[in-house]
Amino acid sequence: MAYQLFYSPGACSLAVHIVLEELGQPFDLRLVSTADGSTKTAEYLAFNPKGRVPVLLIPGESQPLTELPAIVTYLARRHPKGGLLPNDPLAEARCHEWLAWLVGWVHGMGFGELWRPERFSADSTTHAAIRSNGETLIHDGFQRIEDLLTEQTHTQTLGYTLVDPFLLVLYRWGEKIGMPMGRPYPIWTARMRDVVARPAVARALDKEGVNVPEIAVGQ
Amino acid sequence: MAYQLFYSPGACSLAVHIVLEELGQPFDLRLVSTADGSTKTAEYLAFNPKGRVPVLLIPGESQPLTELPAIVTYLARRHPKGGLLPNDPLAEARCHEWLAWLVGWVHGMGFGELWRPERFSADSTTHAAIRSNGETLIHDGFQRIEDLLTEQTHTQTLGYTLVDPFLLVLYRWGEKIGMPMGRPYPIWTARMRDVVARPAVARALDKEGVNVPEIAVGQ
Repeated sequence: MAYQLFYSPGACSLAVHIVLEELGQPFDLRLVSTADGSTKTAEYLAFNPKGRVPVLLIPGESQPLTELPAIVTYLARRHPKGGLLPNDPLAEARCHEWLAWLVGWVHGMGFGELWRPERFSADSTTHAAIRSNGETLIHDGFQRIEDLLTEQTHTQTLGYTLVDPFLLVLYRWGEKIGMPMGRPYPIWTARMRDVVARPAVARALDKEGVNVPEIAVGQ
Repeated sequence: MAYQLFYSPGACSLAVHIVLEELGQPFDLRLVSTADGSTKTAEYLAFNPKGRVPVLLIPGESQPLTELPAIVTYLARRHPKGGLLPNDPLAEARCHEWLAWLVGWVHGMGFGELWRPERFSADSTTHAAIRSNGETLIHDGFQRIEDLLTEQTHTQTLGYTLVDPFLLVLYRWGEKIGMPMGRPYPIWTARMRDVVARPAVARALDKEGVNVPEIAVGQ
């Protein structure tokens, strides 16, 4: 019995995919493309009424597990040898703090507004303003990511945790929407260069057929 | 040395306030009203650039802890005798799944759009459509809360966890915006009736000077 991860290539589910590769657990990938509407079919909505990815099916558990922060926390805790979530309550809380903000604000609000304005308003004449606001939130959020990584790099050793795969997803999305990444965000870029050099990360990117051109290994 | 909780009466910070009361830990309340703009002053933004509540100051830790899911998880883990977060990784993950969705979607998107449309668009002519979409998300979200509690009540014993204080915050907000709550959401209502009867919850409501009329104790 293996985990089953419902994913869409390059979507936020890539972060869960990386975590599964890191933990060395058996899993099967189930493709549900967000681009072709597969997450909105009646069959998929019966399975996951939220109509989103990622979803994790856990051997022996009938109810699918949704919500990215919950899925990666579950995996890290269930397989603690992977060391992806610190044991100290405060260090662990910092990981939850990062994830809640990255997932709920930078992704949910910023990229949500930019890519899915229809989630925010049924009136299509408002969508240009909503997209524009999303771009502002993304720029502000990316600067805040750089600032936080800079502060934390100066004050403590920040190990690789379950936050890094999600930071890579957002970094890749920044490239995808044409933002310059290397020069404005040097600390974030250096960190992601180390992340894509990890064999588990390379495997996940390869399986999904996506890449991160600016920091591709070998460049 | 005591925890310091930065809160606004009846805001989502009420959930953290309840958790602190439940755990019996010493804490001081620091009022930062969202209604009068106190979360947007230069002084507060220097302290917390996100300009939001709740924020927890932890004795011996210089950096404030933000993001509600991170704060309540930290408190539950730091004081495990309170029993607010299950030890089993899957049961724990279900709590994170609830919190991520309630905080990120029902609050962040639904009530965010209804009460703070300016977060979603700088163009005020779009705000009516955004508020209306927020109302739809709240109604759909509340029905889903009722459905989830019904399913889970039928399939397992759902103990009191750190999810319940946040379910109470949302229930109270439903009343506040004039939604009928008792008849459409009987399972949720029954659960919240038990929650407000807890002495720790009553203390927190009393200290913030707020109440939940439909399920007030003694009615």
